[in-house]
Amino acid sequence: MKLATLKTGDRDGILVVVNRELTKAKLVPTIALTLQAALDNWSEVEHELREAYRQINESKGEFIPFDSYKVTAPLPRAYQWLDGSAYLSHVERVRKARGAEMPENLYSDPLMYQGASDNMLGACDPIEVASEAWGIDFEAEVGVITDDVEYGVSINDAGSHIKLIVLINDVSLRNLIPDELAKGFGFLHGKPASAFSPVAVTPDELGAAWENTKLHLPLTVAWNGQLFGEANAGEDMQFSFAKLIHHAAKSRKLAAGTIIGSGTVSNVDSTTGYSCIVEKRVVEIIETGVAITEFMRFGDKIRIEMLDGQGDSIFGAIEQEVKPCR
Amino acid sequence: MKLATLKTGDRDGILVVVNRELTKAKLVPTIALTLQAALDNWSEVEHELREAYRQINESKGEFIPFDSYKVTAPLPRAYQWLDGSAYLSHVERVRKARGAEMPENLYSDPLMYQGASDNMLGACDPIEVASEAWGIDFEAEVGVITDDVEYGVSINDAGSHIKLIVLINDVSLRNLIPDELAKGFGFLHGKPASAFSPVAVTPDELGAAWENTKLHLPLTVAWNGQLFGEANAGEDMQFSFAKLIHHAAKSRKLAAGTIIGSGTVSNVDSTTGYSCIVEKRVVEIIETGVAITEFMRFGDKIRIEMLDGQGDSIFGAIEQEVKPCR
Repeated sequence: MKLATLKTGDRDGILVVVNRELTKAKLVPTIALTLQAALDNWSEVEHELREAYRQINESKGEFIPFDSYKVTAPLPRAYQWLDGSAYLSHVERVRKARGAEMPENLYSDPLMYQGASDNMLGACDPIEVASEAWGIDFEAEVGVITDDVEYGVSINDAGSHIKLIVLINDVSLRNLIPDELAKGFGFLHGKPASAFSPVAVTPDELGAAWENTKLHLPLTVAWNGQLFGEANAGEDMQFSFAKLIHHAAKSRKLAAGTIIGSGTVSNVDSTTGYSCIVEKRVVEIIETGVAITEFMRFGDKIRIEMLDGQGDSIFGAIEQEVKPCR
Repeated sequence: MKLATLKTGDRDGILVVVNRELTKAKLVPTIALTLQAALDNWSEVEHELREAYRQINESKGEFIPFDSYKVTAPLPRAYQWLDGSAYLSHVERVRKARGAEMPENLYSDPLMYQGASDNMLGACDPIEVASEAWGIDFEAEVGVITDDVEYGVSINDAGSHIKLIVLINDVSLRNLIPDELAKGFGFLHGKPASAFSPVAVTPDELGAAWENTKLHLPLTVAWNGQLFGEANAGEDMQFSFAKLIHHAAKSRKLAAGTIIGSGTVSNVDSTTGYSCIVEKRVVEIIETGVAITEFMRFGDKIRIEMLDGQGDSIFGAIEQEVKPCR
């Protein structure tokens, strides 16, 4: 099943079911007005939503054209956004760039930060930043959206709470990050609003590519029309999504609609390219002594997408342009 | 004006206007069903809410008894919770306890972390923790709730976005914090759900005690019935709430319903006592070489309240008991 949130005059938009080919959408106001409302009552509404999905794929009933430029994030404002760092090759390269030490216990204890969830960007919303000097970077990620997760959930039980999967552009302002990480309190200025794929999909939609709560497909990242990376999201993911949820819920429950990110998808084999600029810069420094690739400028475009085995887009594409915010 | 959210079977509860003496409440479903809905349209609903407040104070119309045990947090789930550390005597003492360095620029650049907002506790909800060994502590704070704040808001403009003021118990698990702060990504396990005062009040309700976006009154903290602290929240607050909002909005806008905390209220003069246990422990270590006061145990009770010049409770009391979570 594929779900999206259409932009309306309202802050929360309106839930639609989208067909597998991402060409048609159907409003489902009698089932749930918003995705948050659906997640709040997932066990009660899932069956009806799946029935609407079956109908739209069989072209039964009335539909509207689906347009990625008319959607907001699946959850345009969410109650929780937690971002892990499950790909350790990303962590190693980024820390090398900052001259930061690798934390102890890194292979057993995931890095995760509490991110801002009050304003989530639609797939084609601009990345608005006050200054290019802040070091504008993209981070292509996979994310999951949960229903209610109990306090201290086990790894075995955590996977069953994954209701939806999304792609995420976790926009990062690299030049603001070192100072605030030095303060020890996590990200505040360095991680402005993230953007989400046009649709969120249920795990069954991914077939065999979804295994052990990892998504075994390449994540395609193109910067200004040039392929920048196609790392496989299922490889080198040290912590599965089940493990990340278990980690997040150690000392508290998680409310329905919690979004948990994988962290920047990254493979140890750097020939698959990169899902963020800073990793490429570090490799350049190691190889040539100096970073050659600059961060994003106003007018730059980023495209993040994942294709299935048949070459069809699963989530639709994140397609954003960087703009000055005033 | 005083507002609260009654518990219902629903996740979001229902908004009520509460009289000044905190004895009566009035449902206002024709104005706004929830506090979030009111904040989303504050300029449109404020006048009507104030009219309902005038009526309840004049005993006009129908009311229900107000009971702090029947409220949830003013925003039982919020889109953003940012906690500052505006009282530097707290920061100095806590860091001393952890053996951590004081960050540079501390006097001009506020510490602030992105906290979990998916599950906010009502004033009398229990503090449920899996283990006493995690070092259960309270932190008594003042907080503000904003409407929509523009990207990069100036300090001068920031104050006008403060719509409501609350008291907060920012529960902390001291023994989980050092390891996660060492990782640099902020708090995840060490800061479980926070609790809020029964009512949120508009700034005008505070009279002369609200000056330059600081609240100049003592915050009373009692642990198991014993007075533990009565630090004045208006003294030694290095960063006003306007400054904290300005800081938070440096690289992004903030959505209506954003909650910003002062950090643990603390005075340089330690004879006013403490608003958290860890500060007392540090002073004990300095004075005697060893921490005498233990952290909270199951069954312990904490009460946080602020009285006005006439000795009346402004926000009602946070009254929580620590319980094992399973």
